[in-house]
Amino acid sequence: MQFQTIASRKNERVQAFCRLRDTAAERKRTGLFVLEGLRLCADCAESGLMIESVFCTEAAKDKGGARLETLFSAAETVFLISDAVAEKLSDTVSTQGVFCVAKCPPRAAFTVRRGERWLALDHIQNPQNLGAASRTAEALGVTGLIVSGGCDRFNPKALRASMGSLLRLPVLETEDLAETLKTLGKTVPTYAAVPDETAVPLREADFSGGAVLVVGNEGNGVSDAVLEAASARVTIPMRGRAESLNAAAAAAILMWEMMQ
Amino acid sequence: MQFQTIASRKNERVQAFCRLRDTAAERKRTGLFVLEGLRLCADCAESGLMIESVFCTEAAKDKGGARLETLFSAAETVFLISDAVAEKLSDTVSTQGVFCVAKCPPRAAFTVRRGERWLALDHIQNPQNLGAASRTAEALGVTGLIVSGGCDRFNPKALRASMGSLLRLPVLETEDLAETLKTLGKTVPTYAAVPDETAVPLREADFSGGAVLVVGNEGNGVSDAVLEAASARVTIPMRGRAESLNAAAAAAILMWEMMQ
Repeated sequence: MQFQTIASRKNERVQAFCRLRDTAAERKRTGLFVLEGLRLCADCAESGLMIESVFCTEAAKDKGGARLETLFSAAETVFLISDAVAEKLSDTVSTQGVFCVAKCPPRAAFTVRRGERWLALDHIQNPQNLGAASRTAEALGVTGLIVSGGCDRFNPKALRASMGSLLRLPVLETEDLAETLKTLGKTVPTYAAVPDETAVPLREADFSGGAVLVVGNEGNGVSDAVLEAASARVTIPMRGRAESLNAAAAAAILMWEMMQ
Repeated sequence: MQFQTIASRKNERVQAFCRLRDTAAERKRTGLFVLEGLRLCADCAESGLMIESVFCTEAAKDKGGARLETLFSAAETVFLISDAVAEKLSDTVSTQGVFCVAKCPPRAAFTVRRGERWLALDHIQNPQNLGAASRTAEALGVTGLIVSGGCDRFNPKALRASMGSLLRLPVLETEDLAETLKTLGKTVPTYAAVPDETAVPLREADFSGGAVLVVGNEGNGVSDAVLEAASARVTIPMRGRAESLNAAAAAAILMWEMMQ
């Protein structure tokens, strides 16, 4: 295998990587996203996504291993990078020295079937909450995620927190979650999670016919239009002084009940 | 009220604040910890903890409000700081300009009573997981937390993620969780959460007599000694390709079931 070498932090490939890492707009414009870490990069290659380029330090290359080989053979180009370049590309405290640029898969069409159980995230803002919810969803066997409000599944922090599950789970994107729920509601019941004692206590909700369960934005909760569109409201009964749960914790409890 | 002014980032009070913010050793040595944000600082004063000093920008002081007054009157000293100093003290992307140094409360003695429900964290490393688990515990009405392995409840990131619940919930600290569980096991059943299909499925566990539920370290899970010491093992059944749940998500699901 032929390697190209990059020693300068000002190299244009390095600059392009950083732009993809840092801005959703650049990911959208180019249809590319970036990953850091051997495990995530190899997961991505094994998921069948196109790997445009791999960046790897000399030390990481010498360490080698089967997953690195797989990653190299999936890539169009492999760049050997200096430690200084690796530091520049990295989003973590101590980098492994392996990175890739991959192509975003085409947007999937909406297909939610009777009896399926989906988690919908209404304008979730924190990429770590998106990633954590996705990781929990995959572990519990949730069918897939529906995301709205420009919530970016290719955000590197979300991908890392998701342990790669965002590359494996079906993720449906919508500009208008309320409209989407109205349509999906003909197939499966839709539930909005609210911190409101008058809503159906979670344990009493009936998910036996499948469900789309909506968790709201960290600060503002589920939007009014989505509340209107949902077939019912469910709540996690609270007992303490804490006014609300963290979005990822709420999503974990909600999905757990939905999957029983 | 008299204010002292600090304009230099090199001021020794500023240096001392940053040391307390950044190292557990310094918090331990001095018996002090720091908080950022009006809400957390005021929560702390209202919880009856001693506020040694408050640092506040001119803009935050002008904004004023009842909570700021409460905070000022609880403090031994109030420093007016420049925006540059506020930036230096801050741990967040955009600071509100309000900070305090508070005294750690004395270590509580162990008192776990029959029928109570506690969450134990075995060498949890990520302060955000500690904070998130605490926030969920308070919201669900869990009696308190038991922490081991030098897990520092006064870490600023943990305090922020906990929304102040770490200052309100009973938090018991132990150097040896296995020994502690052996003692507590005479009063309430103790459960270790494991990703192991042969353990009792969570839904089938009986928490009616109270419980201490142990969640393990992010990388290594519950330690062998703690597994030995616990009266039973419970598991969250997994269905997907994800090998495990994030510690805070697992803790949320476990506490939810424990509180039913």
